[in-house]
Amino acid sequence: MEAKTNGPSVNAGRVMDGPTNPMVTPLLTDLYQFTMAYAYWKAGKHNDRAVFDLYFRKNPFGGEFTVFAGLEECIKLIANFKLTEEEISFICETLPGSCEEGFVKYLRNIDCSDVEVYAISEGTVVFPKVPLLRVEGPVAVVQLLETPVLNLVNFASLVATNAARHRLVAGKSKMLLEFGLRRAQGPDGAISASKYCYIGGFDATSNVAAGRLFGIPLRGTHSHAFVSSFMSPDEILERSLHRSDGSSTCEDFVSLVQSWLSKIQWAKALGNTVGETNQSELAAFTSYALAFPNNFLALVDTYDVMRSGVPNFCAVALALNDLGYKSVGIRLDSGDLAYLSGEARKIFQIIEKEFGLPSFGKTSITASNDLNEETLDALNKQGHEVDCYGIGTYLVTCYAQAALGCVFKLVEINNQPRIKLSEDVSKVSIPCKKRCYRLYGREGYSLVDIMTGENEPCPKVVGERILCRHPFNESKRAYVVPQRVEELLKCYWPGKSGKVREELPALKDIRDHCIKQLEQMRPDHIRRLNPTPYKVSVSAKLYDFIHFLWLNEAPVGELQ
Amino acid sequence: MEAKTNGPSVNAGRVMDGPTNPMVTPLLTDLYQFTMAYAYWKAGKHNDRAVFDLYFRKNPFGGEFTVFAGLEECIKLIANFKLTEEEISFICETLPGSCEEGFVKYLRNIDCSDVEVYAISEGTVVFPKVPLLRVEGPVAVVQLLETPVLNLVNFASLVATNAARHRLVAGKSKMLLEFGLRRAQGPDGAISASKYCYIGGFDATSNVAAGRLFGIPLRGTHSHAFVSSFMSPDEILERSLHRSDGSSTCEDFVSLVQSWLSKIQWAKALGNTVGETNQSELAAFTSYALAFPNNFLALVDTYDVMRSGVPNFCAVALALNDLGYKSVGIRLDSGDLAYLSGEARKIFQIIEKEFGLPSFGKTSITASNDLNEETLDALNKQGHEVDCYGIGTYLVTCYAQAALGCVFKLVEINNQPRIKLSEDVSKVSIPCKKRCYRLYGREGYSLVDIMTGENEPCPKVVGERILCRHPFNESKRAYVVPQRVEELLKCYWPGKSGKVREELPALKDIRDHCIKQLEQMRPDHIRRLNPTPYKVSVSAKLYDFIHFLWLNEAPVGELQ
Repeated sequence: MEAKTNGPSVNAGRVMDGPTNPMVTPLLTDLYQFTMAYAYWKAGKHNDRAVFDLYFRKNPFGGEFTVFAGLEECIKLIANFKLTEEEISFICETLPGSCEEGFVKYLRNIDCSDVEVYAISEGTVVFPKVPLLRVEGPVAVVQLLETPVLNLVNFASLVATNAARHRLVAGKSKMLLEFGLRRAQGPDGAISASKYCYIGGFDATSNVAAGRLFGIPLRGTHSHAFVSSFMSPDEILERSLHRSDGSSTCEDFVSLVQSWLSKIQWAKALGNTVGETNQSELAAFTSYALAFPNNFLALVDTYDVMRSGVPNFCAVALALNDLGYKSVGIRLDSGDLAYLSGEARKIFQIIEKEFGLPSFGKTSITASNDLNEETLDALNKQGHEVDCYGIGTYLVTCYAQAALGCVFKLVEINNQPRIKLSEDVSKVSIPCKKRCYRLYGREGYSLVDIMTGENEPCPKVVGERILCRHPFNESKRAYVVPQRVEELLKCYWPGKSGKVREELPALKDIRDHCIKQLEQMRPDHIRRLNPTPYKVSVSAKLYDFIHFLWLNEAPVGELQ
Repeated sequence: MEAKTNGPSVNAGRVMDGPTNPMVTPLLTDLYQFTMAYAYWKAGKHNDRAVFDLYFRKNPFGGEFTVFAGLEECIKLIANFKLTEEEISFICETLPGSCEEGFVKYLRNIDCSDVEVYAISEGTVVFPKVPLLRVEGPVAVVQLLETPVLNLVNFASLVATNAARHRLVAGKSKMLLEFGLRRAQGPDGAISASKYCYIGGFDATSNVAAGRLFGIPLRGTHSHAFVSSFMSPDEILERSLHRSDGSSTCEDFVSLVQSWLSKIQWAKALGNTVGETNQSELAAFTSYALAFPNNFLALVDTYDVMRSGVPNFCAVALALNDLGYKSVGIRLDSGDLAYLSGEARKIFQIIEKEFGLPSFGKTSITASNDLNEETLDALNKQGHEVDCYGIGTYLVTCYAQAALGCVFKLVEINNQPRIKLSEDVSKVSIPCKKRCYRLYGREGYSLVDIMTGENEPCPKVVGERILCRHPFNESKRAYVVPQRVEELLKCYWPGKSGKVREELPALKDIRDHCIKQLEQMRPDHIRRLNPTPYKVSVSAKLYDFIHFLWLNEAPVGELQ
């Protein structure tokens, strides 16, 4: 096994842990970053001061917003970026041709002390073309960072966005659980998904490792296999259960459950619809309640939800109630969730009245069968009684769009602005080291993002009109009088520049920030159907410079 | 940082490493596996002997085959399955309600010494419903394994299948490179993808960490940023280059390149189409050649492929040729790959003739712009001159279908067969501990897979007709007289049963096995368009038993 744990690094007197996954090392990069490093070094260009922007060109999932995530892991990588001797040997063996000794020495001394990273806060709602990260430093080192940083941001932002979209459809009042571990793209496809779904607004995960690593609340009860592993209540040997207040003990909880089942079966209010229920299921529910009397939640669809699962759940819940325990609820994992949740709710309400159980009608209903944005939306339209969703495959693999296309482009080298041209205008990069601002309007919503040259003055708040131009379409421009101006890029890694380093917030704070950010968006930007694109602009000065450089670099075509 | 390295385990005198990713621990599971373990333990059922099958219900990507992968990582997990004290404390704090001391002791003693794992060899072509793994052991322990084993098999098999499908479309003669690291789903979404794409038939990866971990060949040259980081050849200070045989030194390689560029510009055979090329690009190519004279491969689309990139490449390649070096080729990363590769090929052929460079016409052309199965297929139909494909996003994220739906179902407990029913017949599980065979016909192709009860005799090879029945459709059945019978499930983890443990093969052998397996498939099963489903069957005896059990368990409906 080759994976290793990077030691903690010291920066400005502080120690910072390495990336969560110890496999994230300086070797988690494309080989060409090392071949280029060698070529830069051979050309004496390796210390040329380069500025790269990390950004995406299109919001995912047909939407008009993205949640930026992955920053903390990037900074942890950068803080601990150091090649080991074994890694250096491997690189030198791998580079085609022989590798000069001077380069080996150079690799030994590489770290990120001369790199500066400016970034938007993690959990912020972001838009195409605006840099999420700006990384400055010696060109060879910054290029080594390109691939791992893209890897750490791309999926993190994609899955946080997916989670936020699920939250928007489900509504604030629903509990959202991430259940994706078994179908995720590998072990930390799963662990990352748990982390970034939490940031995007999920409440809990089933993934124990992620719960432990990040302090995310954990949820889970039992599976179909648990139900079918039982044959009948006869096999339950330990049948006693203390009252919840410890005052006495019920010696035969199994019989208590059976007697409640009979009462349910004979209850006129239930219209005599309950016949024989499945005994293996009843045994499983009873056993589970004996183990977790304070947290009884039963999966009710192993045999037949309405004829077996729900009545069996109610029998056990009523027996628990006798002993002072309040049951949690049921989980539906198949069938017509709108219909079944409604039918189950009716039974719970009838039982509340018939047997005088206050609030039993509000028993929680969890649904969890291949859910995604579309099914949540369809459930809302049909009407349903689901309180909690467990969402797996479609959430964590981002099934609707499995990749976000962040890129990392050179925008300046040795103070010379650089532009990447393309026949496709959407792929032309915005040159120069830039500053980025978000301008807010009267109602508190954000109006537009604007990029300016590094040395332009910051847009002013009161009274002054600011001209915001589309970077490539000359006819698209607007004057804005902002009520508030927020600078987006902050210094998260100052290197040896002496600048103040922005603290990395706790996961919970990133999540709160994300939720607040979404509340500050004008609803038409974040709605599912035909959302309005959010405006991203450049200053008049930057606009002029982009087009000057473009004409300068583009070859004049010749029609033949 | 919480990730840890599991120590190696000893089994039958052999030490086995832990999983590649140290984050794969017994906590990488759903919380409900632990709540169930507690409930089983409370009910005294935790040591009930259970048999679970891991299988999928539908082949991915609209195809009719799947490549099984992920076995080695599963066995490494199982071989090292042991909870640490810290993990046990975390579980006990996390379980709802208080956790009895006896359960803590039980968790301390859990390992897989009493578990047996039977599996199909990694790299085998597999089909729906046939168990890829059969895991037997104490029900509570086997359920803890469910989630991590599904996680390790689902993505591995999905991405290996995706790679195999890309190989089938590209054809055997093409070089296939995996370039997905930056867009993969997290760090080991990338590392796993590199490993399993290699198994599925790729030749190399750009991912240095994966190359080092698994010994996969590495490939990579330079990016657009490298090209645009140069301004002009004037900035190249170290201009000398030894001849390849070391006999002499060219003092000004930059001028040699410039003189070749003039010759190309004036060459009548090229129809005077070559004008001024981009000097920043020429500088970058020259520098790269100075660093890697034996491995000169240039990315030619930063400015304009035909007017700048290809002529600049040829000038450098001709200069290298003067000094005895053979160039590798070009890479195209945008535009019309069919057209551009054809035009570049023509130039190479003209230069071969015009300047007398043997085999220069065969200079390698790599293409790498958002490629997938469809674009490879379209390129084949249009005709192209590409020799090598670099494939990223669509390959490693399995963009066309981001998840495989393997499930893990209880088929027997304490020697009692169990069936999981569903309104959807395709979701009904096949009960019983089973044996699985692949039957081969006269032409060497596999004809059908058949599952039998554990104690049924093995299908015989010569002369005997075997009745193969569709598990759920009574009218679908066929007699088969096999020429060869292969038992699919082998013992990869014997626990303490004393059985012989199948060795885990080397990665290269798994890859060879996969390639050979695909060659043994009848072509209509693996073709892209309307492939024929491969037949999966059960023995007559197992068929009868399934339907007996089904009728026994299913409730009789009542129409009202």
